[in-house]
Amino acid sequence: MIERGARVELDALPLAIGVDLGGSNLRLAVIRGGALELATAHKEAVGEPRDPGTLIDRLVRLIDEARVRAGAAPDDVVPVGIGIAAMLRDRRGTVANSPHLRWRDVRFGEALATALGPRRPLGVYNDVNAITWGELELGAGAGVDDILAVYVGTGIGAGVVSGGALVEGATNAAGEIGHTKVRWDEHAAVCACGGRGCVEAYVGGSYVQARVRRELAAGTRSLALELAGGEPSAVTPGHVDQAAAAGDGWALDLWSELAPLLGVSLGNAIAVLNPARLILGGGMLSRTPILREQVIAATMIAAPAALTETLDVRDAVLGDDAGLAGAALLAARGVSIVS
Amino acid sequence: MIERGARVELDALPLAIGVDLGGSNLRLAVIRGGALELATAHKEAVGEPRDPGTLIDRLVRLIDEARVRAGAAPDDVVPVGIGIAAMLRDRRGTVANSPHLRWRDVRFGEALATALGPRRPLGVYNDVNAITWGELELGAGAGVDDILAVYVGTGIGAGVVSGGALVEGATNAAGEIGHTKVRWDEHAAVCACGGRGCVEAYVGGSYVQARVRRELAAGTRSLALELAGGEPSAVTPGHVDQAAAAGDGWALDLWSELAPLLGVSLGNAIAVLNPARLILGGGMLSRTPILREQVIAATMIAAPAALTETLDVRDAVLGDDAGLAGAALLAARGVSIVS
Repeated sequence: MIERGARVELDALPLAIGVDLGGSNLRLAVIRGGALELATAHKEAVGEPRDPGTLIDRLVRLIDEARVRAGAAPDDVVPVGIGIAAMLRDRRGTVANSPHLRWRDVRFGEALATALGPRRPLGVYNDVNAITWGELELGAGAGVDDILAVYVGTGIGAGVVSGGALVEGATNAAGEIGHTKVRWDEHAAVCACGGRGCVEAYVGGSYVQARVRRELAAGTRSLALELAGGEPSAVTPGHVDQAAAAGDGWALDLWSELAPLLGVSLGNAIAVLNPARLILGGGMLSRTPILREQVIAATMIAAPAALTETLDVRDAVLGDDAGLAGAALLAARGVSIVS
Repeated sequence: MIERGARVELDALPLAIGVDLGGSNLRLAVIRGGALELATAHKEAVGEPRDPGTLIDRLVRLIDEARVRAGAAPDDVVPVGIGIAAMLRDRRGTVANSPHLRWRDVRFGEALATALGPRRPLGVYNDVNAITWGELELGAGAGVDDILAVYVGTGIGAGVVSGGALVEGATNAAGEIGHTKVRWDEHAAVCACGGRGCVEAYVGGSYVQARVRRELAAGTRSLALELAGGEPSAVTPGHVDQAAAAGDGWALDLWSELAPLLGVSLGNAIAVLNPARLILGGGMLSRTPILREQVIAATMIAAPAALTETLDVRDAVLGDDAGLAGAALLAARGVSIVS
């Protein structure tokens, strides 16, 4: 049976290679004893072409170069973990859909595992899950076994750890908090996922930015527009937050509308999961501190009081390194290795 | 690291005693090799007084009698698992609150573990978690590692299993799906938990029954009233469902209002958890088949399509035995033993 917190200590883990395969960049680095070996780090643009065959060839070469930089002998077994910006379909690295890579129904994990061979055991993880695991082991989740990590960037994603284990779900697609519903009437916002009323369609960065620009272009007056030099198409959620901080009515109204929506989604997930810690990250929330505070306040109202008494809220701390560190550590721990 | 589905086989588990401590009845039985030994089963009313000291004395005596009936020698180590109708605060059996037992802040697990001594290792579980585990091992959850089990009785509770492990949460209070919010405006219904807008305050059996009786007593006409002999105070949710099945407009409208609320709560939990199977149980849903179908339909609309493709919906099958079987099996597996 599972023992809580009985994970192998970081310094007893094997050397592993972490890869972060996003829509823009491909990064990799060696993790040893829980430390990122900066001298082994490499970053390049994903670029074009970005079909699976081309990227698999490039990954095999880059992984072998990283092995050499890490001083691994040809016979050494070095696990490889990849965090990928994709919805997965299983624990074999099958990509159901990746708008960023423009992949759909790709048996990526099996093809890459075959190309890498037996001395490079492979794990493929959703990018937010990899980031969450990195924060758990090395960042804002250290010391606890139950976390909910929520990232608000252009979209909204989450990672869940329960009893020290990653909650992957039946098809490795858990954590879709961005697609929890906050409206279900005929006016519910349309989401790019094909659903309606998803919290991401209200509070996801790309939706907020589009709405803000639309309203300001239509003549709404706000300090946010001045902060962006008077150009509606230059206004970001960060400008709206600065305007809200200065007391701008429109900005405050907008945040007052959006914060409870995300707060309810977070509070409802907390009710089901009872995490010890809520970790908040992502490019949007880090630039919107007023919204962040309002979201936390709304979360505390929405979640059951008995579960917020012991809940600790922290910001993600590892930034861009979280994903590749987490992917490497998951692979080093043998989680969902493609066989 | 945790291996999915790597649980010890049922027939290799030790003999264990399961206890179901509810608001009305106290039941116990011996589980051996995944089988409930009916000859060892015992049931009595909780009755009065129901203070912790009195119940601990009774439990020690009943557990020892069950050991004797099971043929255990005095030196045999026989784990004891108790499923209790309470919100817990930790993995040591501390009861935060049990309206049924009228207990609040009671260190039940530690006191009972001390009274039982080292040959009766004790685990204390929330009753819905125990029921969920029973269904996982012996009932509607067999064969999968990721389940969401939702019970709609007088209230609404859930149990979650992820990767073959019970999701207990940081303070052993996970699964509070009944207190996820489906409204957050000023008209949101007041819930007995002290919150507002909880799905339980709309779809929990006691709330539905109170509303139905109130509306019918105020003069609303419905076949449900005739089915109950014309007496509003005798109408149950089951009568409303029978009326809906016969095309009664008021009953259909009520179910059309309530089904999406529970469907959204279930769909949102599915988005976060990605279970392989949704198990539905509880006294209300088993008597309201029309509502049950509408809730399932609403759940499938609310949950992300990618996660419902592989989702299987089943009814709970073990009935009253699920809780004591699950508690015994959790204790036999060494989950959250009070030490």
